[in-house]
Amino acid sequence: MARITIADIARQAGVSTGAVSYALNDRPGVSDETRARILQIAADMGWAPSSAARSLSGAKTETIGLVLARDPGMLGVESFYMQFLAGIESELTKRSYALLLQVVPDLETEVRTYRQWRAARRVDGVIMVDPRVDDPRIELLQGPDALPAVVVGDTSLAGGLPNVWTDDAAAMRESVRYLHMMGHRRIARVAGVESFGHTHIRDDAFALETARLGVEGTVVRTDYTAVEGAAGTRALLASDAPPSAIIYDNDVMALSGLGVASEMGTKVPGDLSIIAWDDSPLCEATYPRLSALSHDVTRYGAHVARRLFDRMDGAPPAAFLDSTPALRPRGTTARAPGA
Amino acid sequence: MARITIADIARQAGVSTGAVSYALNDRPGVSDETRARILQIAADMGWAPSSAARSLSGAKTETIGLVLARDPGMLGVESFYMQFLAGIESELTKRSYALLLQVVPDLETEVRTYRQWRAARRVDGVIMVDPRVDDPRIELLQGPDALPAVVVGDTSLAGGLPNVWTDDAAAMRESVRYLHMMGHRRIARVAGVESFGHTHIRDDAFALETARLGVEGTVVRTDYTAVEGAAGTRALLASDAPPSAIIYDNDVMALSGLGVASEMGTKVPGDLSIIAWDDSPLCEATYPRLSALSHDVTRYGAHVARRLFDRMDGAPPAAFLDSTPALRPRGTTARAPGA
Repeated sequence: MARITIADIARQAGVSTGAVSYALNDRPGVSDETRARILQIAADMGWAPSSAARSLSGAKTETIGLVLARDPGMLGVESFYMQFLAGIESELTKRSYALLLQVVPDLETEVRTYRQWRAARRVDGVIMVDPRVDDPRIELLQGPDALPAVVVGDTSLAGGLPNVWTDDAAAMRESVRYLHMMGHRRIARVAGVESFGHTHIRDDAFALETARLGVEGTVVRTDYTAVEGAAGTRALLASDAPPSAIIYDNDVMALSGLGVASEMGTKVPGDLSIIAWDDSPLCEATYPRLSALSHDVTRYGAHVARRLFDRMDGAPPAAFLDSTPALRPRGTTARAPGA
Repeated sequence: MARITIADIARQAGVSTGAVSYALNDRPGVSDETRARILQIAADMGWAPSSAARSLSGAKTETIGLVLARDPGMLGVESFYMQFLAGIESELTKRSYALLLQVVPDLETEVRTYRQWRAARRVDGVIMVDPRVDDPRIELLQGPDALPAVVVGDTSLAGGLPNVWTDDAAAMRESVRYLHMMGHRRIARVAGVESFGHTHIRDDAFALETARLGVEGTVVRTDYTAVEGAAGTRALLASDAPPSAIIYDNDVMALSGLGVASEMGTKVPGDLSIIAWDDSPLCEATYPRLSALSHDVTRYGAHVARRLFDRMDGAPPAAFLDSTPALRPRGTTARAPGA
């Protein structure tokens, strides 16, 4: 598996290095038959153009970049990112692209990583996730010579860059309205990390819709983990006026909420209704099965990757609605007790 | 964010391009003070050595490669790979390395990917997962000019390459013995994908230990998903001689087994004991909490990455036992009914 050179291919094919060069670079100078034979021999030998030589000549790196500014330990907790990566990879494999994945401690390091990738020509484009209010990454990626980028998140946070978003506000409104119609008058929200833009969007929709309907709305803050989801649920159920319904910001916390309810003798859905965000195989593995805001995260990842390829091909920036998470009532939602 | 050149840095610093070159390449020819100033200016401008130029000169790519020969859609189902990636990233971030991740449909494409990465100098080393019996990847990675590699799996499957393994056979024996001592005489195993080497190792240990103890052992084959885990559990519980204990090959299937037991009115742990493989936050989020073979997958990933860095630094190949998954009995294991 030593480095294959054009001379090696020429020797194997019994032709000149010039002929190999013509064939590999798809230029005239060799017959179609010889070209086909050389390409076959090159493929058999495992030849690939040096990414070094290609990137010096301005060719593509056939690599997409994704930086995650998160504690690496947190990645294993949620199924969201693995499903999202799976969706990205499903589009990348079609084009034989690889994904360059880097986990960094903070946004400043993420900005520096983009600069280095751009300067060193490591990737053809980037997918930017978890946009925030006044996000320093947006400004960097808006520059005239910036890497092509797609923002995964709300249009209001994308600063004119192409973005793919899900209508979380509409999904939250629908959930609160559904629970209200089922007689629930005390509804809680177990929310994820506060600094993420989509947390604010869900917060605002929850506050507005509960206020509009005259429903008592309580919010508990967590870091998305099962442990904090369980602690938040215990605090809510042990309060003087416990909610009759809880909407969780992910699936793992909803699962732990279901566990806490069993532990405390609170019947689901008789005494407590539960809704999970990000429907996943987990939600169908529990008993009763978890009612969820269903959103195909794998398809979302694939959609984002396709929009980035379009962008790298020169498509103008635009906002693309992926979908509105749809409420899928299963076994954990019912009419409020006494309603 | 245009490409920063040495000339740009020289202009900004008010020195010659030669001085910049001396400073950046850590060669004599400039004063320490000037060197420090040039390096600071270069860093401020976002300068990074071109990966193209560096790899032509034989320098490092600062990238580790991981190929997964799996259906991309399957990646989102199990928490194993995201936790494993999280562990790898925790070591990579310390060294500012990136991970090049490629998902491919089959082993042949994985072999071709290694060839291309080697030829194009895309990565400094690779982590090879899911080793099989007579694995074509091993032969390729044994070559004298092959990419430095670490195999994640049993020593018997690694062909003399450095490997990091967990003693799954010991963990399986311990689980069967524990259940036997608790009076269980019919034990089932809901197993994962058959072509993986570690599935065979667990199969053999399960067969030998149940035979040795005179326990009836049944094996059900699945693809690791919650859906097949649930179906396998239903078939076992509806059989003429249902088991009083089930050992699952991952956490998600154990979770779905717990759900199926509730659905069918089988009490856990009164009528049925359940053990999950790969203890994860999920296992503590259920009620009762899942007894599990505890294995810190994030730490496992970090260990593998460290061994690969050692290998790239010239360490001789060796076999490293990461750990033996430890049985952690929680709420889903008890004495057999009537025992």
